[in-house]
Amino acid sequence: MKPGALEFRGSTSTPKNGVNRGVSVLDFVLRLVGIIATLASAITMATTYETLPFATRFIRFRAEYNDLPSLTFFVAANSVVCAYLFLSLALSILHIVRSGARGSRIILVLFDTVMLGLLTGGASAAAAIVYLAHKGNSRANWLAICRQFNSFCERVSGSLIGSFVGISVFVLLIILSAVALPRRSSHH
Amino acid sequence: MKPGALEFRGSTSTPKNGVNRGVSVLDFVLRLVGIIATLASAITMATTYETLPFATRFIRFRAEYNDLPSLTFFVAANSVVCAYLFLSLALSILHIVRSGARGSRIILVLFDTVMLGLLTGGASAAAAIVYLAHKGNSRANWLAICRQFNSFCERVSGSLIGSFVGISVFVLLIILSAVALPRRSSHH
Repeated sequence: MKPGALEFRGSTSTPKNGVNRGVSVLDFVLRLVGIIATLASAITMATTYETLPFATRFIRFRAEYNDLPSLTFFVAANSVVCAYLFLSLALSILHIVRSGARGSRIILVLFDTVMLGLLTGGASAAAAIVYLAHKGNSRANWLAICRQFNSFCERVSGSLIGSFVGISVFVLLIILSAVALPRRSSHH
Repeated sequence: MKPGALEFRGSTSTPKNGVNRGVSVLDFVLRLVGIIATLASAITMATTYETLPFATRFIRFRAEYNDLPSLTFFVAANSVVCAYLFLSLALSILHIVRSGARGSRIILVLFDTVMLGLLTGGASAAAAIVYLAHKGNSRANWLAICRQFNSFCERVSGSLIGSFVGISVFVLLIILSAVALPRRSSHH
């Protein structure tokens, strides 16, 4: 961002455009972080499986993410959010170039909020199941399968981190949008 | 909202204040809906228990929400969100009276976003566990406990509804705030 470009914008429009452009650049960077985090989560979860070195005649002891519906939902939610973030980069770039855009910012806040809900839902459902896999539940007689599938559980637990980074990114994005929008009205 | 009061505001401030006041009233009503929904969820979940009509010498077969950590988190999340919504009514009333308030609206968006995350997390974790209780999981050898605790499962499943109503309320609140804020800047 050259000072000259900033002054040019300032002469045709409001003087707060510099702040708004900074927010737009931060918005773009946050979306990149979110893409990497959710993509890493989805890939780590989807590629993790473990086959135990023993088997009975009928059962091969193998664990992978689509044995558990919540983990499948986790992969789907992270993939959808990652794709959305990638598409939203286009609008984010538009906001850096044209910091006066208003309607497209509202659309982004709308979808960001829905995607925050989707990602939080996926991450929480997976976390609940992973917790159960680690600890088990004696009252419901659900055994801690992590005692058998140890490395599977470790990788699955790790893959949750990316999702929670993604959630933080969305919270920041929504707050940034909320802060950036009214600031434009503070000088009339 | 009398027309006289609306004209008085219009003469001292911007003419869009009528729209903004309508949004503030809608904000207030949505918060009331959210309070009722999350309170109903928390109470239904917390007061549900079932004791089976038989027992061994060591185990009394009784199910209640704090047997499962995810359901405990569900009750906690709903209670916290309900308390927050109750407190936020004060700011919401302030926004109906003084539709020019800007800083307090940003604070509300910030907390609304965090509370959306908390409520979605609680509801999704509980939904994942309730799904497991209904269906079980043959790969992990987790049995469907709903076959025994039938009425417990039904009431617990029902209590999720309030939480998802609460989530919708928060999505609407955040979008409303985002729409209401930039509209004030459209006439300078």
